[in-house]
Amino acid sequence: MAAYKDLRGYLEALEKAGKLKRIRRAINKDTELHPLVRWQFRGLDEGERFGFLFDRLVGTHGESYNGAVASAVIAPSLEAYAIALNCAATRQAMYDRWAEAFRRPLPPKRVPSGPVKEEIHAGEGLLAHGGLKEFPIPVTTNGWEALPRLSGLCWVSKDPETGEVNVGTYNGVLLGPLESCARVSPRGHMRIHWQKCKGRGVPLQVAAVVGPSPAVVMTSITEIPYGVSELDVAGGLAGEPIEVVRCETVDLDVPATAEIVLEGEIPTDYVLPDPASGEHTGYTFIDRSALAFHIRCITHRKNPIWHDLVDQFPPSESSVMGNINREAHMINFLRGSCGIPQVKDVAFHHCGGSRRLTVIRLQDLGGTRTSNRTVWQALNASLAVSTEWPKIAIAVDDDIDPWDLDSVFWAICFRYQPHRDTHIVQGRGATADQSGGPRTLSLDEQEYPTNRSGLQGNSSILIDATRKWPYTPTSLPTKKYMERAREIWEEEGLPPLKPREPWHGVSWGEWPESYRRHAEMGDRGEFDKIAEEILQQKKKV
Amino acid sequence: MAAYKDLRGYLEALEKAGKLKRIRRAINKDTELHPLVRWQFRGLDEGERFGFLFDRLVGTHGESYNGAVASAVIAPSLEAYAIALNCAATRQAMYDRWAEAFRRPLPPKRVPSGPVKEEIHAGEGLLAHGGLKEFPIPVTTNGWEALPRLSGLCWVSKDPETGEVNVGTYNGVLLGPLESCARVSPRGHMRIHWQKCKGRGVPLQVAAVVGPSPAVVMTSITEIPYGVSELDVAGGLAGEPIEVVRCETVDLDVPATAEIVLEGEIPTDYVLPDPASGEHTGYTFIDRSALAFHIRCITHRKNPIWHDLVDQFPPSESSVMGNINREAHMINFLRGSCGIPQVKDVAFHHCGGSRRLTVIRLQDLGGTRTSNRTVWQALNASLAVSTEWPKIAIAVDDDIDPWDLDSVFWAICFRYQPHRDTHIVQGRGATADQSGGPRTLSLDEQEYPTNRSGLQGNSSILIDATRKWPYTPTSLPTKKYMERAREIWEEEGLPPLKPREPWHGVSWGEWPESYRRHAEMGDRGEFDKIAEEILQQKKKV
Repeated sequence: MAAYKDLRGYLEALEKAGKLKRIRRAINKDTELHPLVRWQFRGLDEGERFGFLFDRLVGTHGESYNGAVASAVIAPSLEAYAIALNCAATRQAMYDRWAEAFRRPLPPKRVPSGPVKEEIHAGEGLLAHGGLKEFPIPVTTNGWEALPRLSGLCWVSKDPETGEVNVGTYNGVLLGPLESCARVSPRGHMRIHWQKCKGRGVPLQVAAVVGPSPAVVMTSITEIPYGVSELDVAGGLAGEPIEVVRCETVDLDVPATAEIVLEGEIPTDYVLPDPASGEHTGYTFIDRSALAFHIRCITHRKNPIWHDLVDQFPPSESSVMGNINREAHMINFLRGSCGIPQVKDVAFHHCGGSRRLTVIRLQDLGGTRTSNRTVWQALNASLAVSTEWPKIAIAVDDDIDPWDLDSVFWAICFRYQPHRDTHIVQGRGATADQSGGPRTLSLDEQEYPTNRSGLQGNSSILIDATRKWPYTPTSLPTKKYMERAREIWEEEGLPPLKPREPWHGVSWGEWPESYRRHAEMGDRGEFDKIAEEILQQKKKV
Repeated sequence: MAAYKDLRGYLEALEKAGKLKRIRRAINKDTELHPLVRWQFRGLDEGERFGFLFDRLVGTHGESYNGAVASAVIAPSLEAYAIALNCAATRQAMYDRWAEAFRRPLPPKRVPSGPVKEEIHAGEGLLAHGGLKEFPIPVTTNGWEALPRLSGLCWVSKDPETGEVNVGTYNGVLLGPLESCARVSPRGHMRIHWQKCKGRGVPLQVAAVVGPSPAVVMTSITEIPYGVSELDVAGGLAGEPIEVVRCETVDLDVPATAEIVLEGEIPTDYVLPDPASGEHTGYTFIDRSALAFHIRCITHRKNPIWHDLVDQFPPSESSVMGNINREAHMINFLRGSCGIPQVKDVAFHHCGGSRRLTVIRLQDLGGTRTSNRTVWQALNASLAVSTEWPKIAIAVDDDIDPWDLDSVFWAICFRYQPHRDTHIVQGRGATADQSGGPRTLSLDEQEYPTNRSGLQGNSSILIDATRKWPYTPTSLPTKKYMERAREIWEEEGLPPLKPREPWHGVSWGEWPESYRRHAEMGDRGEFDKIAEEILQQKKKV
């Protein structure tokens, strides 16, 4: 399948797949838009979710806007994310897609011009259409956030020493026709560029891109090693180079088919307070600061589509993407870097903001159960990829569905002994996790407490919920009976089945010969002979 | 609503509510019936589940049967269980129904005769219709179990000293036309009767009742204090006395409208091995023993319905009923007996076999958060109701849905620090929990290990996943925005919403005045004024 040239081509594909809804009535971008989009994340099953395209936007004081807003269009669900990735809707296909993109990055291709130059506002004409206020930028976590939030921006900047390009997604707010900001964490790569410019006493030149093709959006939001250009990986993901054009006022290239590009500079001599912001942890950030952003030029397509990315209370677009990316990363790490081939699957969960909770599914190799030491190698190793996540890591056997929390808790209830199978690890960090300490402590102290009861840092808990020795069979009919019954079920026209694991019984080693022989006799209906044997085994008391 | 006089009256009500499916084709009771019933527990959402009525049963060797089989008819789902309880389909209504039954038990009313006497097989005619083999008793956990299993029996017996009646549900298998058995745990009340008869050197007289009215079935399966007659509680549950008739050959009364009654005696000088049996833990029991049962008389209705109760891999009928009953019990215990009014809800879960996993939801009283000491009182107290369950107890705040494991894990991810908020309690038992020790140990040693690494017993884990100090607001739009958006959602004809908690944002104490003021200004669209204030707060770095 050919790569999407732009956001519009992707939205067409999404609509064709029944995963995009157009809202044609007038919607207040500041009070109605986001609550509407957010309902689906709290009120629909994942398979039912879709992206939104709002055609007609208004403001609280009667403002009207030329363009549209696309919200939650990249990853309202795994199915939609697969369409964005242009692959089958299976986790494995998605992992493979990313692995391929990293293996074969393709540098961007510069072209003389592109649709993003259809309108250019610069110099004296910079404010002709109102600057940033031309666009219907929505307020996101309404009731807590005070200003329209620029959520889907891909910020392009360069390392002033090496010239290496970085593209990253950072949040900002609308602070005026030519003023915005970017909240970049201490670990954000644009922060490194900023620090280096600060050292040189110059501002950082940037271009903030709105609505490039999905490959650029997905790469921009992903953690990619410093020094690797996201535009190259995006090319790998798309399967062809991303076409880029030169900016008008800064020394940067931007995707030629993007909807909007904001060119400008970030001062390095001061920062701004970041207004309240709803976050992926399920809570609202306060007390943070942001980098200021002065806009010097705006270029955009005709009737531009403002791209809004949903990254707040989970599940959200960022947790749909985050789970897949962290799963692929952790599997590679445990299997490849740590050499644990018993790792079959790794599941991350929305409720952990796609970071804190992971379930590691181990498979028997050679027909024996996974050894205790291998289980613990995997659990301990899982903490090595980050100073703060996972916070909860649970190891389960092959018959447990690691994405189904019911299945995971069944394993915990019957395969785990708390005093024997738990390990708590201190010395961990916890960005944005308020359980570390109250707001009366400094942000550093919340993230890595040093003086509370003499305990160091936050902690993670490792739980071994695998079988430690042979178990008796699962109390479900065996496969052949369940398969036969499924035929009858379907012939009778009973409601469609969505089988959950386990859906048939299997033996876990404790199945003595005498029981096996009786079960076989029972299958042949030899009940009288079985009963006779049992009655003969009566035991005086 | 009037009480159900019998199983048939209840099945009519169930069918009318769309919660009963009749299967008219010939079904092999030993190979096809149970796998068919079990699919719905592994393949349908709870709201879609139903009871089964099989009209035409055959055996592996071409046997045919006169009667029908009703399987999973009492509690395939909460909705069906509510119909059986004759109350609204809310947890509170069910808790209230049970509380009322215990508060106002009604002794049974003896009547001269009843439908259960329509056919009487005794004396020389005892085997005229084949004894137990007259009935289409199904094999349950096919592939592991070897014999047809009598799963829904209500065993009536008397304390030989006090004459107090007990009714209890115990599993047995078909061992011949006049031979069966009953697996009664060491804590089962019929076991006390048996022990007392054993002391006197006499057998225990019993009547095993198949298919009485739902009130009797539900009471028989419930843990009721020794000495309280289940028939009295069943009367309380039905709202009118259970009509009973005298047995033919034993000194016992049985429900007059039951489908089948098996009268006979249990020898007290020996026991039998219990064949393999699929159980509520999700595994198959082996190595257990059972009490033998000799049948002396059979009475039944014309075209009797064999009642089969599903109590194997969870969810099952017994976990649907078990969750409700244990929830009601634990709430009463924590609120009433321990005096903790902050306990709002207690949730038990299918995956824990309705015993091992409980989530305690605490509510703020007087607008402050629940104090740490109260949280720990509740968690520690929860272990007091049993030597073995709950195995995992989790305390959560009021905004967490304790029945939704995603919601519970969200709380664990962001409100819990493992090193600080975990308490592991040893000295616990673990009937039927194979995680305690391998089968090479004795059953006693598995259930209460004494010599493994010097640790005593099994263990429980207590997890405090409540907020310990004020938190910033949930990152969801506030209620008024979400409510307004829901109106638009419905006007636009978007797919029906099933809201999950939380579906709107609330403040958890950390919401400084400056942020509150800006959010209010934002609601009025005063963006320029807010931006101006923020730009003025720039901070030199």
